[in-house]
Amino acid sequence: MKTFGLGLIGCGVVGGGVVRHLERNLDLITERCGARTEIRRVAVRDISKVRGVPSDRLTTKWLEVVHDPQVDIVIELMGGTTIALEVAKAAVQAGKPLITANKALLAESGEELFHLAQTKGVPIYFEASVAGGIPIVRALREGLCANHILSLHGIINGTCNYILTRMSEEGLGFEEVLKEAKDLGYAEADESLDVDGIDAAHKAAILASLAYGFWIRVDQVFVEGIRKIEAIDVQMARRLNYVIKLLATIKSNPGGAVEVRVHPTLVPKQHVLASVNGVFNAVAVEGDVVGQTLFYGRGAGPDATASAVLSDVAEAVLHKQTNGGGRGFVSHNLYGKLITIDEVCTRYYVRLTVKNEPGVLAKVAAIFGFHGIGISSVFQPEDHDGDAVPLVMLLDFAKEASLQKANAEIEALSVVTEPNQVIRVEDFS
Amino acid sequence: MKTFGLGLIGCGVVGGGVVRHLERNLDLITERCGARTEIRRVAVRDISKVRGVPSDRLTTKWLEVVHDPQVDIVIELMGGTTIALEVAKAAVQAGKPLITANKALLAESGEELFHLAQTKGVPIYFEASVAGGIPIVRALREGLCANHILSLHGIINGTCNYILTRMSEEGLGFEEVLKEAKDLGYAEADESLDVDGIDAAHKAAILASLAYGFWIRVDQVFVEGIRKIEAIDVQMARRLNYVIKLLATIKSNPGGAVEVRVHPTLVPKQHVLASVNGVFNAVAVEGDVVGQTLFYGRGAGPDATASAVLSDVAEAVLHKQTNGGGRGFVSHNLYGKLITIDEVCTRYYVRLTVKNEPGVLAKVAAIFGFHGIGISSVFQPEDHDGDAVPLVMLLDFAKEASLQKANAEIEALSVVTEPNQVIRVEDFS
Repeated sequence: MKTFGLGLIGCGVVGGGVVRHLERNLDLITERCGARTEIRRVAVRDISKVRGVPSDRLTTKWLEVVHDPQVDIVIELMGGTTIALEVAKAAVQAGKPLITANKALLAESGEELFHLAQTKGVPIYFEASVAGGIPIVRALREGLCANHILSLHGIINGTCNYILTRMSEEGLGFEEVLKEAKDLGYAEADESLDVDGIDAAHKAAILASLAYGFWIRVDQVFVEGIRKIEAIDVQMARRLNYVIKLLATIKSNPGGAVEVRVHPTLVPKQHVLASVNGVFNAVAVEGDVVGQTLFYGRGAGPDATASAVLSDVAEAVLHKQTNGGGRGFVSHNLYGKLITIDEVCTRYYVRLTVKNEPGVLAKVAAIFGFHGIGISSVFQPEDHDGDAVPLVMLLDFAKEASLQKANAEIEALSVVTEPNQVIRVEDFS
Repeated sequence: MKTFGLGLIGCGVVGGGVVRHLERNLDLITERCGARTEIRRVAVRDISKVRGVPSDRLTTKWLEVVHDPQVDIVIELMGGTTIALEVAKAAVQAGKPLITANKALLAESGEELFHLAQTKGVPIYFEASVAGGIPIVRALREGLCANHILSLHGIINGTCNYILTRMSEEGLGFEEVLKEAKDLGYAEADESLDVDGIDAAHKAAILASLAYGFWIRVDQVFVEGIRKIEAIDVQMARRLNYVIKLLATIKSNPGGAVEVRVHPTLVPKQHVLASVNGVFNAVAVEGDVVGQTLFYGRGAGPDATASAVLSDVAEAVLHKQTNGGGRGFVSHNLYGKLITIDEVCTRYYVRLTVKNEPGVLAKVAAIFGFHGIGISSVFQPEDHDGDAVPLVMLLDFAKEASLQKANAEIEALSVVTEPNQVIRVEDFS
């Protein structure tokens, strides 16, 4: 099995995440790539701050990383648009696949970079540049490649979505929530990149370029931030059955012209995007063949970004080593086991039909208690007729086998007149 | 530019969609693949029923398609598990990449087929086999490849989701809604494959196998259908702040064992999956690096399935023609145009702050009317203090330029005491 060398430029919060998760999931990634990967050189400003990388692999000179013959793939995670552009061009010039999470770099210099990459026949991967936790770059480039994109709507700034969600949930004002977001680390000390829509505009430019196949510059994107939203607007929107989101809207008209804009937008409450809350991101894409689709996940943070960077590492490795990238079903767990339904542990909704007489609840509760199953909620609606009444319970986590035993015993009670209705509850916890 | 020949086995509803959409979006697909594709041979039971394919390319013998030297890629869309298995094996034996939408085939014979494919070094693509409108196979295999999958929750049967959605929205009973679904074509005459959970179990087996890297058979999946759900359950669930969905639940425990089950499940109302309504599908995936993600789209139908099949065609073409599948930014629209914000046409929410005196609404409405902007809703809350009162309007579609002109004139009115609050409305229509 071959080993490919990775070179990192920048090893701050995101770079640290890449180092940590690559080490942690190395076996998995190796099996899925069909090749080993190793971080062989890392360039940083301050060597003393890096963890998880042997010190003899550290340097303060990025050129050493790019030109190290042991480095096959270059990963640019330094941010900024000046030196980062030099790094990116040097890697491509050296014939080394480039992975970048730098949305500002691509939104400003994408056209130049991809032109160079095409000339040199070197791939550039950038899944992490837009919504790291959502594989939207791949979705547009591959999964939806047979589609003309009719529209794309994105909640692509987690800070703004957090602020608007809090304003909506708590009825608070913008300034108040902004302060809270800063205290919690969801907003930067200088909040303007986020709340004025600039970060979202960078991402919108990249998504629009991908969707429509020509480069759209950030200065061509209409931007309005969320500072102007007041508590009363959130409240009025709700009364009208809408929620307010900072939305990136990208659309093409029948003539093929494209609009790209980022601004606060009322979204109908019943639309899936309206339930995208907190720091989460989502991108809804409508294709002329596939219809409506939506992709949801974390937008930022070292973990989500590392997931995207590492998926690009896998693709770059595939590019380096195969003659066509055959990527059928790759087995990586030959000793997998299955849990049977009996062993499943979940919560339950149980609806009993019982005789309307005293002591019923005690009998039922005793049986659940005997089997170690807790009852978290009991509910008996008042509107019923006849002798039999419904009794609804939400149970705590229990093994299916225990639940089934308890259920059988309860059904055998003379006060229970019909089979119990049992439905499993999923809390996604 | 090279041309690759496609051979179709089966050309019913799904095959017809593939033929139609490939023809319609051929330029786009050609540019994105960097190669031409052509349907060169089609095997069907009844030649007279096929449209869109020249008759000299039709045959009733599938072996002729597989062994035609003009056919480079075989697409199996016939369904069933007996002859389809022969077709799949013959294609792989012949060294031709296989594309299939056949979930039953993979769920029953996947292990055998992929073993053969691995031996022969021939790829099998199956994006269309699970939720055609959601590129979930790619997401698991590529976008999330650096992740151990902690859990996967899927609404993966559109018929069941339609029925449960209608029961929830209208308070109707199962039998009543099933009849309606049949009348509308959302359920088959024999509904059991869908409502008894068998179709979802096939898909769950494939997703679980992909997520955990070992083959899980359908008979290892716990299945419970939705026939048992009564109107009262839907109603009680709602009172408890849940909705009932037919959910596929796939999880691994810390020891690496996997559970796979399909059954009606209460989902918290505030979870994104709870807003997945009607015939739509969604798959929520939690990875150990990326955290929570969700993918949403149409599950079935000729269009969504064709989108998935054609994305696999692009991948197969890439496999055939490149030395590593470099797939950077592919330009396919050199003459793209941008719409400026002025030309954008959308709906608006406008909140005015006006003096509390008669005739204000008439003045404002006259200005909007002069600029050809319709008012779809006016709302003036009663609880206000002072002379200035809020006046909220939802406007019909209007060009931004017109809206801005009207807005400026309204702000110049002496009865308007503060700048208007203007927010765009997105109805996703």
